[in-house]
Amino acid sequence: MHYNFRNDYSEGAHPNIIKALGNSNTEQADGYGEDKFSFEAADKIKAELGCNNADIHFVSGGTQANLLCVSSFLKPYESVISAQTAHIEVHEAGAIEFTGHKINTYPGINGKLCPEQIQEAVNFHYDEHMVVPKLVFISNTTELGTVYRKKDLEAISEVCKKYNLLLYIDGARLGQAIKSSVADASLADIAKLADAFYIGGTKNGALIGEAVIIINPELKPYFRYNMKQKGALLAKGRIIGIQFDELFKNGLYYELASHANNMAMNLANGIDAAGYKFLAPPESNQIFPVFPNKLIDKLSKDFEFYVWSKYDENNSVARLVCSWATKNEAVDAFLKSI
Amino acid sequence: MHYNFRNDYSEGAHPNIIKALGNSNTEQADGYGEDKFSFEAADKIKAELGCNNADIHFVSGGTQANLLCVSSFLKPYESVISAQTAHIEVHEAGAIEFTGHKINTYPGINGKLCPEQIQEAVNFHYDEHMVVPKLVFISNTTELGTVYRKKDLEAISEVCKKYNLLLYIDGARLGQAIKSSVADASLADIAKLADAFYIGGTKNGALIGEAVIIINPELKPYFRYNMKQKGALLAKGRIIGIQFDELFKNGLYYELASHANNMAMNLANGIDAAGYKFLAPPESNQIFPVFPNKLIDKLSKDFEFYVWSKYDENNSVARLVCSWATKNEAVDAFLKSI
Amino acid sequence: MHYNFRNDYSEGAHPNIIKALGNSNTEQADGYGEDKFSFEAADKIKAELGCNNADIHFVSGGTQANLLCVSSFLKPYESVISAQTAHIEVHEAGAIEFTGHKINTYPGINGKLCPEQIQEAVNFHYDEHMVVPKLVFISNTTELGTVYRKKDLEAISEVCKKYNLLLYIDGARLGQAIKSSVADASLADIAKLADAFYIGGTKNGALIGEAVIIINPELKPYFRYNMKQKGALLAKGRIIGIQFDELFKNGLYYELASHANNMAMNLANGIDAAGYKFLAPPESNQIFPVFPNKLIDKLSKDFEFYVWSKYDENNSVARLVCSWATKNEAVDAFLKSI
Amino acid sequence: MHYNFRNDYSEGAHPNIIKALGNSNTEQADGYGEDKFSFEAADKIKAELGCNNADIHFVSGGTQANLLCVSSFLKPYESVISAQTAHIEVHEAGAIEFTGHKINTYPGINGKLCPEQIQEAVNFHYDEHMVVPKLVFISNTTELGTVYRKKDLEAISEVCKKYNLLLYIDGARLGQAIKSSVADASLADIAKLADAFYIGGTKNGALIGEAVIIINPELKPYFRYNMKQKGALLAKGRIIGIQFDELFKNGLYYELASHANNMAMNLANGIDAAGYKFLAPPESNQIFPVFPNKLIDKLSKDFEFYVWSKYDENNSVARLVCSWATKNEAVDAFLKSI
Repeated sequence: MHYNFRNDYSEGAHPNIIKALGNSNTEQADGYGEDKFSFEAADKIKAELGCNNADIHFVSGGTQANLLCVSSFLKPYESVISAQTAHIEVHEAGAIEFTGHKINTYPGINGKLCPEQIQEAVNFHYDEHMVVPKLVFISNTTELGTVYRKKDLEAISEVCKKYNLLLYIDGARLGQAIKSSVADASLADIAKLADAFYIGGTKNGALIGEAVIIINPELKPYFRYNMKQKGALLAKGRIIGIQFDELFKNGLYYELASHANNMAMNLANGIDAAGYKFLAPPESNQIFPVFPNKLIDKLSKDFEFYVWSKYDENNSVARLVCSWATKNEAVDAFLKSI
Repeated sequence: MHYNFRNDYSEGAHPNIIKALGNSNTEQADGYGEDKFSFEAADKIKAELGCNNADIHFVSGGTQANLLCVSSFLKPYESVISAQTAHIEVHEAGAIEFTGHKINTYPGINGKLCPEQIQEAVNFHYDEHMVVPKLVFISNTTELGTVYRKKDLEAISEVCKKYNLLLYIDGARLGQAIKSSVADASLADIAKLADAFYIGGTKNGALIGEAVIIINPELKPYFRYNMKQKGALLAKGRIIGIQFDELFKNGLYYELASHANNMAMNLANGIDAAGYKFLAPPESNQIFPVFPNKLIDKLSKDFEFYVWSKYDENNSVARLVCSWATKNEAVDAFLKSI
Repeated sequence: MHYNFRNDYSEGAHPNIIKALGNSNTEQADGYGEDKFSFEAADKIKAELGCNNADIHFVSGGTQANLLCVSSFLKPYESVISAQTAHIEVHEAGAIEFTGHKINTYPGINGKLCPEQIQEAVNFHYDEHMVVPKLVFISNTTELGTVYRKKDLEAISEVCKKYNLLLYIDGARLGQAIKSSVADASLADIAKLADAFYIGGTKNGALIGEAVIIINPELKPYFRYNMKQKGALLAKGRIIGIQFDELFKNGLYYELASHANNMAMNLANGIDAAGYKFLAPPESNQIFPVFPNKLIDKLSKDFEFYVWSKYDENNSVARLVCSWATKNEAVDAFLKSI
Repeated sequence: MHYNFRNDYSEGAHPNIIKALGNSNTEQADGYGEDKFSFEAADKIKAELGCNNADIHFVSGGTQANLLCVSSFLKPYESVISAQTAHIEVHEAGAIEFTGHKINTYPGINGKLCPEQIQEAVNFHYDEHMVVPKLVFISNTTELGTVYRKKDLEAISEVCKKYNLLLYIDGARLGQAIKSSVADASLADIAKLADAFYIGGTKNGALIGEAVIIINPELKPYFRYNMKQKGALLAKGRIIGIQFDELFKNGLYYELASHANNMAMNLANGIDAAGYKFLAPPESNQIFPVFPNKLIDKLSKDFEFYVWSKYDENNSVARLVCSWATKNEAVDAFLKSI
């Protein structure tokens, strides 16, 4: 039997979501996200955020959320500050630049951008021959599976406020970040610190969809116009509303994220006990162990996963991802093979 | 009881689709549209097109399909030719222009673009101070519910070929166009005449999704890069593949379109019999009767529909839309009220 | 001898300008428009505008001024309202659209946009499926050589203020508009009515250059960043400053415009006396007589001019343009030939 | 007396150019670069390139040349490879990104991009989640005043050909690169190796203007449409043609570049003799000595120059630039002050 640690979007949705899609199916609802399902989902999320006047918009994917927010929030000469490993920099096929904006990248540490690097970006750009860095982009969890602590986020937020920068968080795996054993920032904390962010559904049990959250009132007006213009306004917007309504019912969102994290931590502990190290500390549902190339060849016969990068002549970095649907037996089988 | 003729995206999906989403839910599949469901759906569509080497890509909405195709197919100085009533011109919040391209519009007749107008666009533009018209955009059915006959499409295709223009068809309601009682062009005919088009799912029984079809081999390379860049590549691409697989099983796609058309034709016949005229000839699931304002006020109490435009001092144009889910009783109730 | 009525940019510059370029040549000056010549030119223009806090930026051409201003002033979903004959719509190769913005066009009358058409644009666009018209673009003189009266401009400004629209004037031939015998709006009047505009140099005696004037304080910040980003910030910005300084010394700018207008009016009067009519009333240095095709063939042997458009089977519209350098003998020769 | 080593665009033009502008002033010529002066200049440049079928277009500045070429040559998903110090990356206010394209940067050595880094860019990007690197951008001289040797260019060209990449050279100071004492590549060599480049006028004795050279026939069609769309087509295009005609008459272009280089080398030799080192080896008209902060304070009283960057606690990097107009006495005065 073949186990899949390739990613967290291989399955469909949590059964509750499939059921909810079926139950609501024959009901009529207004189009373009102005349906009762979406409104109810938004209310549940606002309660979780402790922020009644957040604006919430549902879109179909993470790249879309990112390009939509950046292009809506920035003026033409304004740029994004991110880590070199950021999804927008490496894995969105130039989506941000297509909307006209530059990304200024900094090395980051274990995938996390540091306040000092934001300060460096501000210092470096000083006249009209240069862009104006305006939006700080971080992913939580990061692209290396690490997690920002509350004090990390506070420090970043502080430098943003000092220089009138916007803080935007790519939350494709925000549930996993919040439920990480090293984490101490709740959704409500994040809503206090960020100007806007998105809560990922696709990689935490939904079939499709992310919830864009806008906290900063200056960023709210006309956002739906930008959505329409970028092809992000869905005629049957209910399809995402129904899913988020289900995810934020009885804590399902957190439960699924915890499961994914726990499975990955079990993997990480076993790998660590076997004497292997990691590219970045394992903190969420994505872990990056360093394995001998020979072991990788062997493992590849029974398990699916990405070989992330070369480590040295004889070793490579693997990426192992667990999801809401990963089973104990898959983890056990993997650990037996190393 | 309140009946809804507002649009064709108020309900969820056909029950078969909901069932298919449930049945496939726990199966693992590759991400980003490279899953077996999407491949099977593409195969079924290709069979229908009679074109084995068409490229098929599934995206989440019509505006996205349009902006993606136009921006992928055109060079910066190339423009689109469309009718003034075209969706891209009026109802996509400037999506095409956001990607950098101009739309050259012509009046059209009953929402249909004419070969003579394409010729006029070609003649008018002749040097480097002007754009180069390159892509002819038509919607079938049109935004006024009318339908291009096969000979209309052949005439447009001919002028396109003569001037090396691309023919692109917005098929948000292509099923309804094909099954219109006035129509005589099959999907296979369209695949012979157009360079690219999309087959709409959202407005014909799917929960979400449109199938972009690329016939012209020059337009195929690197299309997935453009998809990713515009946020159109879905992590769980299977969600659309599964639906189209269902729609093209046993002719469901045609059946749903026929039902929508039939309901609208029943409405149109009754309205015609009652002595009212239409903004454009009723030919598909969207009809545009001209009603006295007083009648519109009365009807609005029991039925939901758009008042499309003012006709004269005392009359306005209503838009009535039927869908795969419209019931006979709704039609009957409406006709009794006029 | 061959006379040229083709355009107003066939010669070099007025001799005073050439002299000024020579006289200042060895002086050192700061780059990028922050030189004393540019500052002095700006001061002279501000005095003429009666507006000390206008922002003035010198750029190399009209299309650049237009695309720069529109893309700097508008948000992504905002559009331009213009006449169908507007330069940005027809003769800038899609420059505005390349920056991401739609142009909503209206027929206009004799090349002039009417307040009613602006109102129509506002009424037509009402939700997030549509763009938001935000900037009214007019050219003065228009592309048909006609001129807005002060009351025309006041009426347009009034509707702009009512709906919070920006009024922008393409002044490629603003000198000719101001000095037109039908005109009654001064530069100071225009500065009171428009949010931004440009004063054309290239077509009124300069070698190169237009002066962008920003009146509305909300449009001023970061404009130089936008200039740099669009390639509009010249390293030796002095080259345009020196020329505008000369043009606004002792009324040279008005003198050159008057000469061009007078030559064209002499032409127009002679053509009128000979019994020919015009596409639009002759009001500035561009006139559009309707001539029999045979006469056009004959005239083409001795004179250069554009055949603007077909009028009917036997007649066409010619465009005749006079410049600061047009000589009486050319006008006389032309009038003798008709 | 105050000497200026701030840049090479503080003066006007070489006197021959001013004279030529005057001499040609009253002659009539076609607009938009289709004048005899521009044609003659192009012919002279082609002769120098040894390439009769190069396409030559004159534009007003370097940023404009760069954004125009990149946006004309690339498809939306294609990106630029450059050094981190590249002008397009740092000092063009996001111009390339505004046209929709990403820049992938690599550290470079002394401002020069290395073939290995191009190879790295190619290797790193492999699927549709990433951009496709397509155009290699180098500046010659570089932003640090260093110069590519012929073998450097050959090695870069080789890797470009291997991977079907385009080689584009920003030649703002190409004259200075060719006449550098360390250089061995002629204009003809460059025309053999690059797909396109520009020959800078503004920073080598012209008032305004750069000559864009397109060698690769696939890049030639419709370039003037792109020029118009970006505001780069000048109505009185002659203004640049006249200057380049003069620059390429009797080797003036080389003579001016040599003078600028020689002045800078004299400076560099004196600074070296005084025991100071440089950020990058002095090879052209821009040099970057490392001076104690106290010396910089003192020098700043009598000389104008940029403090480029901090070197360490007590030392900073100065940028000293010489031009075609720099005088021996300025160099002598500077050397006496250190």
